[in-house]
Amino acid sequence: MSPVYLAFTITTIISLSSSNWVVYGTEWKPSWSTGAAEEAEAVAAIPCSGHGRAYLDGLVLSGHEPICECNPCYSGSDCSNFSSNCSADAGSGDPYFLEPFWMRHAASSAMLVSGWHRMAYIYSDHSYISQLLVNHIKKLHKTVGNAITKNRYIIFGVGSTHLLNAAVNALSSVNNSSRTPAKVVATEPLYPVYRTQTELHNSRDYRYEGDTSLWKNKTDINGTTFIELVASPTNPDGKLAKAVLEGSNVKIISDRAYYWPHYTPIPSPADDDLMLFSLSKFTGHAGTRFGWGIIKDKEVYEKMLTYLDLSTMGISRDSQLRALKLLNVVLEGDGKQIFQFAYSTMRNRWTRLNQIISKSKRFSLQKLSPQYCTFFKRVRALSPAYAWLKCEREEDKNCSKILEGGGINGRGGSMYGADDRYVRLSLIRSQDDFDILVNKFTLLVAKG
Amino acid sequence: MSPVYLAFTITTIISLSSSNWVVYGTEWKPSWSTGAAEEAEAVAAIPCSGHGRAYLDGLVLSGHEPICECNPCYSGSDCSNFSSNCSADAGSGDPYFLEPFWMRHAASSAMLVSGWHRMAYIYSDHSYISQLLVNHIKKLHKTVGNAITKNRYIIFGVGSTHLLNAAVNALSSVNNSSRTPAKVVATEPLYPVYRTQTELHNSRDYRYEGDTSLWKNKTDINGTTFIELVASPTNPDGKLAKAVLEGSNVKIISDRAYYWPHYTPIPSPADDDLMLFSLSKFTGHAGTRFGWGIIKDKEVYEKMLTYLDLSTMGISRDSQLRALKLLNVVLEGDGKQIFQFAYSTMRNRWTRLNQIISKSKRFSLQKLSPQYCTFFKRVRALSPAYAWLKCEREEDKNCSKILEGGGINGRGGSMYGADDRYVRLSLIRSQDDFDILVNKFTLLVAKG
Repeated sequence: MSPVYLAFTITTIISLSSSNWVVYGTEWKPSWSTGAAEEAEAVAAIPCSGHGRAYLDGLVLSGHEPICECNPCYSGSDCSNFSSNCSADAGSGDPYFLEPFWMRHAASSAMLVSGWHRMAYIYSDHSYISQLLVNHIKKLHKTVGNAITKNRYIIFGVGSTHLLNAAVNALSSVNNSSRTPAKVVATEPLYPVYRTQTELHNSRDYRYEGDTSLWKNKTDINGTTFIELVASPTNPDGKLAKAVLEGSNVKIISDRAYYWPHYTPIPSPADDDLMLFSLSKFTGHAGTRFGWGIIKDKEVYEKMLTYLDLSTMGISRDSQLRALKLLNVVLEGDGKQIFQFAYSTMRNRWTRLNQIISKSKRFSLQKLSPQYCTFFKRVRALSPAYAWLKCEREEDKNCSKILEGGGINGRGGSMYGADDRYVRLSLIRSQDDFDILVNKFTLLVAKG
Repeated sequence: MSPVYLAFTITTIISLSSSNWVVYGTEWKPSWSTGAAEEAEAVAAIPCSGHGRAYLDGLVLSGHEPICECNPCYSGSDCSNFSSNCSADAGSGDPYFLEPFWMRHAASSAMLVSGWHRMAYIYSDHSYISQLLVNHIKKLHKTVGNAITKNRYIIFGVGSTHLLNAAVNALSSVNNSSRTPAKVVATEPLYPVYRTQTELHNSRDYRYEGDTSLWKNKTDINGTTFIELVASPTNPDGKLAKAVLEGSNVKIISDRAYYWPHYTPIPSPADDDLMLFSLSKFTGHAGTRFGWGIIKDKEVYEKMLTYLDLSTMGISRDSQLRALKLLNVVLEGDGKQIFQFAYSTMRNRWTRLNQIISKSKRFSLQKLSPQYCTFFKRVRALSPAYAWLKCEREEDKNCSKILEGGGINGRGGSMYGADDRYVRLSLIRSQDDFDILVNKFTLLVAKG
């Protein structure tokens, strides 16, 4: 074969094999990236019977075949063995329900990282924060209509978890004329990290002081600062919520982790003083540990920047790159695809669970009101991230135990500062986990 | 062209174009990974005149050509304009000196991340910590001989910065019979984050109490816990150091960030109670924010795990994947390549700087003793990460100002709790930064 013909053939074949490839001049051949590309595709091609996944950083057998990591209740080298007496996992909020979306967008969401990508602490503007990613986040909120970002400061954290304490730390010291520690409060049932994280640091500047009901109309204590943590939608029960406390010395941290069309109607863009969002419940990438804050007050923002600097020297540039890549995919076209996928999945799950539970007098689910959603431009049905299940019988005081008896593992109400008559069930895990949950409930409800 | 001939041609050409590619059956073609591979190679191919880099997540011009981010003192769209009256940047410890190593290992250090890679919070063993990466770290320390890991617990953090406070938090509460806050101390000159981070949290459990000299032979105060932070080698001056305080109530945090053959002889494997290491000064990936701790005591380890959980819910799985990939390259062959590269680079830089400074009576550098290195198996010359420069003239009380006058930006001694007669100069930045530093010093010393 003559060299000219060879070059022509390469060009033709590469053009045929993938429309994404640009052929520079007459020929573009992958060079140093090929090993990484092949490795990733080989791992992705391992089917694990559809009940597990193989990962690039998973364990590898001696024959160099990566091991399948099986979904709960599945086992075997290819995850094909199902164990029917295994309990449904409805515990943690691992957001696997979005995984199929990313598998369908394999080409656009893939990224190849060179060994020398962003080795320094800082970006070229000397900050720890990618301005390009800030711009993407602003565009995202405009597309979704779930938060005002104009004239706001944006900060990043290692998940919104990291930003919770950054915010408490900042708010407890800004404009705090009182010498008493700021009182950190929240309304029960609540996300337990609000309390445990605040207590972890055992700070002289702030102290966890329990449920907001203890402090309603009692906030005028020598100018003591109150910091109210408000999740909206709430975790565990998915309601749109507002702050309970009022007064010039009350500062609000708005946890907006679940304020996406996946889980709730969006009545209007949120415009709170300090809002926290996270990749975890939005794209489903909990493991990337990427959260962001939207802040009105410059002094609070600067205090939080200092916290970010001193606690971790900013956040992983690898996580920021991943977030950028994922946001690029989300914003493709009209920017609605991921929301349609997420809503229809969650809607479907809620409907199925509700159909079963509604046949029972023993159990009930939280009541949520349909509402007009400015994103979908209609009144939309319910699709919460968690079921907040109640055991209705007088004698069923420990609802977790009742469910465990039926092969269902959730999280007991007392973890959220509520009665153990309640259990939180995660609906955002894999389809396998949800299917097992529904099957176990069907049997449990049939028992009466 | 017939289909059979086409398949044959593809096989032949792919086999020719890269020996890394495995052809399954008669044909392996990249599919969903091609866009990412091409994008990464296209960005990497932008030369930026050798005085800057283009990044995947850099700003992009309207013509979709990524922008070169130029090294200090270089500018222009291709970084080819050098400004000779620009000051040398010897401030931050951005470890760019290792970048050429990774460029030479482009193929083995590249990684392709799929959109659905590790979305969950946890690994399959329900932890936040990749056990595969733990195993690699243990192998690494065995290869280098710089730390004992057998029967030790390994924990990860968002850089060793994150682990510093995790350790202070844990040690202040474990076996602390006293009701007084633990006293956190360190020997000056010291890494300033020891103080600033400890003060940030303003905890009831611990308090920063200054230099160890204030407490020597005074640690027996009603059983009060002392937590001494010991960097070895020290930052800024690169000496191998030991704890100053003694007693059953004294707990040590050993910051081993610079205990690599790059910077220091390794007399023996470190075997301290609680050691902190970091990717930043080892592979040069400061931006990945990956650090690890090696811990003897189970209770301390468990307290630190709780801290990791509550402060950030573990660390980025993307960072852990990157660390794994980089460690794989480091451990290739006899596992000595990166250390030989790093040592020879740093050795060369120290020699050049020393040659110039030794001609001057106005400035002096820290004295370090050559020592037998168990890794290189010989007494080896000096190669510290930072020059700890002293202005010797009586009137030169503010050494930073003197250097600034000569076009050199370092960090003043008072930042490290030392006299401003000292300045820390970073020698681990890019070759461009170091060359400019040397040129400015040559001129400054010539002035007398």
